[in-house]
Amino acid sequence: MSRVVSDIAVTMDGYASGVGQTLEKPFGDLDQAPLHGWMFDEPYAAENADEVAAIVDAGAFIMGRNMFGPDRGEWNLDWRGWWGDEPPYHGPVFVLAHRERAPVEMAGGTTFHFVTDGIHAALERARAEAGERNVSIAGGPATLNQYLAAGLVDELRLHVTPTIAGRGERVFEGVPAQRWEQISVRATTLVTHLVYRPAR
Amino acid sequence: MSRVVSDIAVTMDGYASGVGQTLEKPFGDLDQAPLHGWMFDEPYAAENADEVAAIVDAGAFIMGRNMFGPDRGEWNLDWRGWWGDEPPYHGPVFVLAHRERAPVEMAGGTTFHFVTDGIHAALERARAEAGERNVSIAGGPATLNQYLAAGLVDELRLHVTPTIAGRGERVFEGVPAQRWEQISVRATTLVTHLVYRPAR
Repeated sequence: MSRVVSDIAVTMDGYASGVGQTLEKPFGDLDQAPLHGWMFDEPYAAENADEVAAIVDAGAFIMGRNMFGPDRGEWNLDWRGWWGDEPPYHGPVFVLAHRERAPVEMAGGTTFHFVTDGIHAALERARAEAGERNVSIAGGPATLNQYLAAGLVDELRLHVTPTIAGRGERVFEGVPAQRWEQISVRATTLVTHLVYRPAR
Repeated sequence: MSRVVSDIAVTMDGYASGVGQTLEKPFGDLDQAPLHGWMFDEPYAAENADEVAAIVDAGAFIMGRNMFGPDRGEWNLDWRGWWGDEPPYHGPVFVLAHRERAPVEMAGGTTFHFVTDGIHAALERARAEAGERNVSIAGGPATLNQYLAAGLVDELRLHVTPTIAGRGERVFEGVPAQRWEQISVRATTLVTHLVYRPAR
């Protein structure tokens, strides 16, 4: 069954990004080492291989413009995302934006589509592309929060890392009171993976 | 070895209390059922018996005035805490306050002392009383956050419950960036117990 899922790495205080994003610092002033070391640094990446693989196991993805790139306002048409020539998505990625732009086809099956008519329209297009596979809300926190507030996320996978950020962009900001259920929890050396679904 | 520890139940979005505390609603507008059901409701309380017992296993306790009672300004001297005649602390409890008040002795060994000279003075008195046992920062979140910001907490035990509060008082509010270590994680049906210590 196709679900709308989201994976997001957060600090103990719930931040998923810093402030002051630049080309050199996709997460702004947030120290990325504790937030993402479990994904990329051995031997920790091996411990978390299943969870890391699940992050990109979806039939379509949705992300905010700031997750796609550091430019603001008019598009920098030379920019093709943070991920090099072959992004890890291998499928359609719908980027929420205010300005139209032609789709960008990358190696390995990733195509970035730019959606200017809102989160519901993006989800409709993503569902149509995903078929039986999941749709992933890839981030960042501001985008995820819009989908959470609208009650559109079927499974939230929080990857909680032992660091306090103190400031930045928080998951759940602006999301109203909701009951959820704890589905599974798995801790490894550097992170705890918490999977939640909305309470029925 | 004596440690400064703190147990606090939080929502997925990091809230430990609501707003609008009254005599009838110690946690204000926060729905207590999902936040504390794992402690009090069977069969869940039995599953979490070790963690619940650890909450009051300390030689001395520190709490904020709002955790002690709903009155503000001048003391209501008839008020002797939320816990009835025999509170679960069975030892000295130092209540941070702006106004002096004589100690209140309760059944079972709990005595409430009122400390008007700040968090460091309260901790010094609590350490002296606790001896080899731990000192517990009992809450609420505003009090815990002061000790976290001052770098005075040796072990933080977050009990994360699957609910989104949307507003209230957050743990970590005002606490600056810090690196911690994940010490242990245990999930039961309704809650995940995460134990952290500051990174060495």
